[in-house]
Amino acid sequence: MYKILNNDLIKEYIDETLEIRSILLDSNESIDKIEVSEIGDGNLNFVYMVKSSKKSVILKQAVPFLRCVGEEYPLSRIRMSFEIEALKAEKEICHDLVPEIFYSSHDMSLVVMQNLDNHKILRGEMIERKIFPHLSEHISDFLADTLFYTSDFYLSSTQKKENVKKFNNTELCKITEDFIFTHPYEDNDTNEYNPKLDIKLVKAFRQDADIKVAVANMRYKFMSEAQALLHGDLHSGSIMLNEKETFVIDPEFAFYGPMGFDIGIYIANLAMSYFSIQDKETKYKNYVKGMILDTWKLFASKFKTNMLNHEKEQKSLQWDYPDGLKHFEQFADDFIKKLFDDTIGFMSCEMFRRTVGLAKVADVAGIEDLNARANIEANILACASKLITSKYKNIDEVMTEIQKHDKQ
Amino acid sequence: MYKILNNDLIKEYIDETLEIRSILLDSNESIDKIEVSEIGDGNLNFVYMVKSSKKSVILKQAVPFLRCVGEEYPLSRIRMSFEIEALKAEKEICHDLVPEIFYSSHDMSLVVMQNLDNHKILRGEMIERKIFPHLSEHISDFLADTLFYTSDFYLSSTQKKENVKKFNNTELCKITEDFIFTHPYEDNDTNEYNPKLDIKLVKAFRQDADIKVAVANMRYKFMSEAQALLHGDLHSGSIMLNEKETFVIDPEFAFYGPMGFDIGIYIANLAMSYFSIQDKETKYKNYVKGMILDTWKLFASKFKTNMLNHEKEQKSLQWDYPDGLKHFEQFADDFIKKLFDDTIGFMSCEMFRRTVGLAKVADVAGIEDLNARANIEANILACASKLITSKYKNIDEVMTEIQKHDKQ
Repeated sequence: MYKILNNDLIKEYIDETLEIRSILLDSNESIDKIEVSEIGDGNLNFVYMVKSSKKSVILKQAVPFLRCVGEEYPLSRIRMSFEIEALKAEKEICHDLVPEIFYSSHDMSLVVMQNLDNHKILRGEMIERKIFPHLSEHISDFLADTLFYTSDFYLSSTQKKENVKKFNNTELCKITEDFIFTHPYEDNDTNEYNPKLDIKLVKAFRQDADIKVAVANMRYKFMSEAQALLHGDLHSGSIMLNEKETFVIDPEFAFYGPMGFDIGIYIANLAMSYFSIQDKETKYKNYVKGMILDTWKLFASKFKTNMLNHEKEQKSLQWDYPDGLKHFEQFADDFIKKLFDDTIGFMSCEMFRRTVGLAKVADVAGIEDLNARANIEANILACASKLITSKYKNIDEVMTEIQKHDKQ
Repeated sequence: MYKILNNDLIKEYIDETLEIRSILLDSNESIDKIEVSEIGDGNLNFVYMVKSSKKSVILKQAVPFLRCVGEEYPLSRIRMSFEIEALKAEKEICHDLVPEIFYSSHDMSLVVMQNLDNHKILRGEMIERKIFPHLSEHISDFLADTLFYTSDFYLSSTQKKENVKKFNNTELCKITEDFIFTHPYEDNDTNEYNPKLDIKLVKAFRQDADIKVAVANMRYKFMSEAQALLHGDLHSGSIMLNEKETFVIDPEFAFYGPMGFDIGIYIANLAMSYFSIQDKETKYKNYVKGMILDTWKLFASKFKTNMLNHEKEQKSLQWDYPDGLKHFEQFADDFIKKLFDDTIGFMSCEMFRRTVGLAKVADVAGIEDLNARANIEANILACASKLITSKYKNIDEVMTEIQKHDKQ
């Protein structure tokens, strides 16, 4: 049933698949009226734009290997099923922040979705120093709502456990376990470095007891805490936006994991952008600083509101006494404090791995002067080392720590 | 295919099922040579002893309702499948501490197993003040090995996630969530009290902010932390033993949860026994105190040894540097410290719920003088209230706290 599509086969496939055909063409129109062009340059999948006179859509198909390497690196195409199910789940919760799905097929490992041709990838836009006034509102909505409404705080115990089973995304979890939580902290062949980065700095943190233990703790949390349906890869390359709209894309790493992972990955990417911006770019630097502070503060406030509103609605017997809601609020504050600690822990791991692991961020790795880049990378490593081994009261203290390590 | 058996139908069933028949009878012997007698008095299942001239076995069958209430309280018989799979998994890890399984059928929701007719239930034996010199060694083996060898510390990430999926024991988890973590802390109709227990004490802890938040935290851990395959109901009624041998039975609540739950439930049952013993029974009181201390200390030491030995064997690149093993040991100590805190938290919940929830322990509830019983119950509630809202360095400090609240 499954076959790998190409430009020609896509036309045939659409011609046979009425649900897609009817979106693009009137019933009497010929399939030759559509244009197909490959536009993807991702690591994992093939992405095509399919266009007719009335509409254009994106068709994304997973192949049973890692696209960027080739057939010698097999990777089960079931990852597309997780992406499809996660897109649907997220869309139901955050309608305006997730692209529209027109058609999906588990058998063909493909999805046909809204073409975001008025939107660009956040990372590129930040490198271009673009400002998005609604972004932190939107992302904090996405985080507060997807994490709350898929968790034990909202779902029935049975429904949540069924979800955990459904999103048993073992293969992609293993990639994260290896490339975020293991390889960057050992002398592994997959790691890649800026040749100008002082290798002594790298060797030092790889043998630091407190850092190693802290990273091992975060790895264990990632593997064992099934708190909520995570996006699983929420960096600034997984967000497409314009001045008005924000869309979160590519949730193929989705699984039930610790909430702080999504928040931490996102804030880490903001922090790395911050380190990459020169002091003289005062305005943009302050904007990114504001993003870091706003993302956490808005998230925390919205998540708490979700918890309190839900409790007010369901009026559980457990908290049904004069001071009950006040005590429940204390429980919410307690939870969010622990979530903050997790967030900073996961944030640190992302900063490490994007500096000395396999995958880099263009914000930093795109800097052509390798010495300037190495200086930024050293700052990021020093900051991550401090963050993961310390406790902070709030995001302002974390921001102060980031600024302290931003030695230009 | 499924049908509920009774004494007569069991004979028919065994006659048709060669795997069981051949254990009990020679091929030419008539089925009339076996004797069947119902021996179970459990809450959930039917238990029969089946005896021939050469052997006797136990046949245990789950019915699709709660046995102790009747057909009006439906409970899916799939619980027997979890019990069968858990027995097999535990047997593989702790061969000498789990009864032998001769035959099992998911379709019939039944298991045929070793008849432990030389063994008695630990709770009854403790009420009789019997001493078992090997018990703490055995139970700490069971805990250290089942919890380690089913966890992310030992299994591959893929295997462990498959296990989580397999042991998706939602229905029985819900019973624990309700009856250990919710109802006892609210004015719920299912709760039952000793009429002589001062109701003001009960009302007070149900409106205490710190206790409510701490219990809600433990409940959330129970629902979201998939650390290891738990027995799920490891109280002193789930252990059968004699002076030489110890068997852990009835793992129908098995699922992937926080390790501290199994340890905490067991130690809580020892602690409640301790409170129930009069000061003048000095020797037995000291014996139970020793059990509490030994169980944790032996567990912690064995679990750590499991972690270190496994790391020495697998020599992961991550810890492969001069001080690597020392740093890994620091990680192990760190983990066991958190596990200790979890253990004391879960222990407290079990002490609360066995005093003011639906199910009681015979050690305390069997005391005929209701005023004497109420005094013990008040001590248990006060102790649990203190334990769950405090931090302790080690089990000795916890034991001191227990003794401080043992006001006779």
